[in-house]
Amino acid sequence: MQLAKLDNIDDYLIAPDPGAPRLTRSVEGHDHTGAAIDIRVVEERPLTIYLNAQEVVTAMTIGDYPEYLALGFLRNQGMISASDDITGVDHDDELDVVVVRTKRKTDYEEKMRKKTRTSGCAVGTVFGDMMEGLEGVTLPAVDVRTSWLYALSARINRTPSLYLEAGAIHGTVLCQGSRPLVYMEDVGRHNAVDKIAGWMLSERVEAQDKILYTTGRLTSEMVIKTAMMGIPVLVSRSGFTAWGVEIAQAVGLTLIGRMKGQRFVCLAGEDRLVRDADPGMASDEPRKSGRKGEA
Amino acid sequence: MQLAKLDNIDDYLIAPDPGAPRLTRSVEGHDHTGAAIDIRVVEERPLTIYLNAQEVVTAMTIGDYPEYLALGFLRNQGMISASDDITGVDHDDELDVVVVRTKRKTDYEEKMRKKTRTSGCAVGTVFGDMMEGLEGVTLPAVDVRTSWLYALSARINRTPSLYLEAGAIHGTVLCQGSRPLVYMEDVGRHNAVDKIAGWMLSERVEAQDKILYTTGRLTSEMVIKTAMMGIPVLVSRSGFTAWGVEIAQAVGLTLIGRMKGQRFVCLAGEDRLVRDADPGMASDEPRKSGRKGEA
Repeated sequence: MQLAKLDNIDDYLIAPDPGAPRLTRSVEGHDHTGAAIDIRVVEERPLTIYLNAQEVVTAMTIGDYPEYLALGFLRNQGMISASDDITGVDHDDELDVVVVRTKRKTDYEEKMRKKTRTSGCAVGTVFGDMMEGLEGVTLPAVDVRTSWLYALSARINRTPSLYLEAGAIHGTVLCQGSRPLVYMEDVGRHNAVDKIAGWMLSERVEAQDKILYTTGRLTSEMVIKTAMMGIPVLVSRSGFTAWGVEIAQAVGLTLIGRMKGQRFVCLAGEDRLVRDADPGMASDEPRKSGRKGEA
Repeated sequence: MQLAKLDNIDDYLIAPDPGAPRLTRSVEGHDHTGAAIDIRVVEERPLTIYLNAQEVVTAMTIGDYPEYLALGFLRNQGMISASDDITGVDHDDELDVVVVRTKRKTDYEEKMRKKTRTSGCAVGTVFGDMMEGLEGVTLPAVDVRTSWLYALSARINRTPSLYLEAGAIHGTVLCQGSRPLVYMEDVGRHNAVDKIAGWMLSERVEAQDKILYTTGRLTSEMVIKTAMMGIPVLVSRSGFTAWGVEIAQAVGLTLIGRMKGQRFVCLAGEDRLVRDADPGMASDEPRKSGRKGEA
């Protein structure tokens, strides 16, 4: 049984576009009986991100919203900060390159040059930089109603998406109260989050009254990115890693996982939860909902 | 309903060790009713990999088999080749560092130094290097019986694992015929594959009669790693990306996805399949098997 899809997705500021021809491809193959079949699979493309003249990373992405992805990636890695004056974000579709330009050289470029001199590459510092970036983060003491969480989960699961269309993709949704606002998907779950961060930075959207919902697991990197974005609540259908929980507890982020039907588990920031919903009233999920993310 | 776990895992050369105290942690939290609960979650630790004096990458890993992970990562990235004489693999548990030492400087170090001089970091070249590494790869024209695939899938799904114990983890299994040999798990699905590659390199295991089974999606990187290892068949419960399919077709790798119960989809290398099993005889999976990887 498949949940009925929503007809009305007008509430979203950005919704998935499962019909976009650039995002999926039809591939011929055979099923288990040997019969020829035709199935749609998601695209996956390299995108190289530059910060000014500095090549930073090549990400594998489905290919939509490359500017948001680049901006959000750099922001979530702590490579650009709120004080950096961004003068341009240029995407070259043929070269699969995005260049983010800032008015002055960023601290990151300086750091990278130093690091390069000693060991030749700055990859290893990236994670350390992310943890450093968390030091100044304070997440607000807002209320989070469990009735919102149930409403969001039900609505997001029924929204037409590339996942429902072609599978093999992760989704992340920026929400406010019981309303999902921006629903991004990508082959890498971190890209979906980074695209939301890029959108928030571009549109100067406030983070403190938001909830982030993801189909992916609650790893350290997901928790760090959410905290870097200033969002106090992260919700997932999937499970946890120990370090993800530890960081959430340290920065005071509300971390909710294994959210399916009426069930969920909260392993950090329980104090924000307002239990206004009767879990017995939230309809339990049918056995096979077509959604991924088994805990 | 949960499938019964296997009692006998003696057939495995390496099986998961869900009881290992270092790999999971008990965490306190609350469930959807507000009741206090205690759940086990998987660990996630940084591991920095060096090739001789060169820092290469920091991977987030569950932490078992660090030497295999380092060796397999470098091999699958094409940073060390069959002709490199490996003189040591040293793991420092306190520093979370593994150093792989070769007799002579590798081509990669040379390449990295050149690259460093021009743009300061070699991250962007890694993917290009992997594609380059595929040029010499020829995969053998072996038979793959569908009866093996059904037997493997049933057996692997019932093997006691960290996934069944704590969730939020990917598994990859090296198989021969209908027998699973080495079952690795990790928070990053690529790490699980790399650990198998490292084991194969250490034990000088032949690749051409093997089948690789993974719980993760069939992305370009998974397909490239499998081909780099010389394994002609890659099977998954999960779905495909278009580039993963394209590369599999180009290198002649048999790519099977969405394998659940009696169903599967083959999108490349169909010619290796010997359809000796009656799909109707393979028992269909119960609705809720406790396994991840929805297509």
